[in-house]
Amino acid sequence: MKESVDSTEFIPSLRASIVKWRQQGKKGVWIKLPIGLVSLVEPLVQEGFRYHHAEPDYLMLVYWIPDTPDTLPENASHRVGVGAFVLNSNGEVLVVKENSGGFKGTGVWKLPTGVVNEGEDIPSASIREVKEETGIDTEFMEVLAFRQSHRSFFSKSDLFFICMLRPRSFDIQKQDLELEAAQWMPIEDYVNQPYNKEHQLFKYVAEICRTKAKMDYSGFSAMPVAPDSGKETYLYFNNRDFN
Amino acid sequence: MKESVDSTEFIPSLRASIVKWRQQGKKGVWIKLPIGLVSLVEPLVQEGFRYHHAEPDYLMLVYWIPDTPDTLPENASHRVGVGAFVLNSNGEVLVVKENSGGFKGTGVWKLPTGVVNEGEDIPSASIREVKEETGIDTEFMEVLAFRQSHRSFFSKSDLFFICMLRPRSFDIQKQDLELEAAQWMPIEDYVNQPYNKEHQLFKYVAEICRTKAKMDYSGFSAMPVAPDSGKETYLYFNNRDFN
Repeated sequence: MKESVDSTEFIPSLRASIVKWRQQGKKGVWIKLPIGLVSLVEPLVQEGFRYHHAEPDYLMLVYWIPDTPDTLPENASHRVGVGAFVLNSNGEVLVVKENSGGFKGTGVWKLPTGVVNEGEDIPSASIREVKEETGIDTEFMEVLAFRQSHRSFFSKSDLFFICMLRPRSFDIQKQDLELEAAQWMPIEDYVNQPYNKEHQLFKYVAEICRTKAKMDYSGFSAMPVAPDSGKETYLYFNNRDFN
Repeated sequence: MKESVDSTEFIPSLRASIVKWRQQGKKGVWIKLPIGLVSLVEPLVQEGFRYHHAEPDYLMLVYWIPDTPDTLPENASHRVGVGAFVLNSNGEVLVVKENSGGFKGTGVWKLPTGVVNEGEDIPSASIREVKEETGIDTEFMEVLAFRQSHRSFFSKSDLFFICMLRPRSFDIQKQDLELEAAQWMPIEDYVNQPYNKEHQLFKYVAEICRTKAKMDYSGFSAMPVAPDSGKETYLYFNNRDFN
């Protein structure tokens, strides 16, 4: 809906439409209501509509017509994050100390991390986060591992990708707002931090990074594939084993 | 908010609180409004609140107090799907013909696919989808590949994981609502379908499956890791290269 409309006109006309749609065997009714038409939210909920999802500037409401169980598709379910393993040719890894969040004050040197935006590719997000936090330019190489967890944020699930990047610059320009410090650190010192020994997830991630640095570990590389309907799409797979 | 409250009392009290919070240097105000309190949505938007996200039974509204740019975290950005590559000991793959959606009427035999629910692990989702569509019991082996695409559903992004599963039963019980047919098909016949030749993404996925069936291809296996704060978490990595 785009035009403003008075609820005393809109609701009777909607009721008549639903009667017609029911006769036609239609099932789901979707109303995308811009925030400017907020006055229609209450009348629609009173008519039996429920929320489906919302973005800053609109609310999507839905109504299920038949007497069968509602099969409307669910809303987006996951947030996606990236952690960047940037290794230089001296065997040093780019690490940061955060000055807010769960790591504040712990003294832990960790990989730069961040959230993947809607519409953003995993390689782009990892390159962007490294640049924003440390000023280092990088090139995406591989996804080394990922983890899925649940109930992380408003009950949503979370996917987090550990990406290996190759640095293309070396002088660190720390982002002062989020970071206490940033440095290149010998990989053994990074892996051997007490925190990484004590937390199983961090221990495995650090050791996978060390394996990648020292031995033969094949993650998933990213290949652009011919887009469906104009959308950019990458396929990630073990490129060493598949040619 | 849980209790019903009249907006003529609520809004003046909220205004007073925001004045106090501003003096205290607070930044973001979050109001989680159950659908039963829908009458407060319009007054809150008139006060300058905007939508953050919604689920069927509530709407989350936010307000940014300072004169600085809003740094409130974004809503969930991705839907997650799975495709199941189920290979039996005769070198046959479990395939289905859908009777709705984009594949309806194309005659294409495809892998069973489905959406990962909020709070559901990728292995569980792939096992559940195969069981629902074909009645076959399976065991999760590996993620062989994944793809990320954008603007797939209400402008959200999409992650799709190709999972290899080992069958633990063999008699197909087709789900009649979504499927026209289901069968075990020799893997070469599956790979060589014209559709899979003509569509780059499908071609690669089919050929990765064939490589897995015939040669040495290491995907990412799933390892449960000690949960942070009681949440079930799996780490996915190349378990052949990392021990």
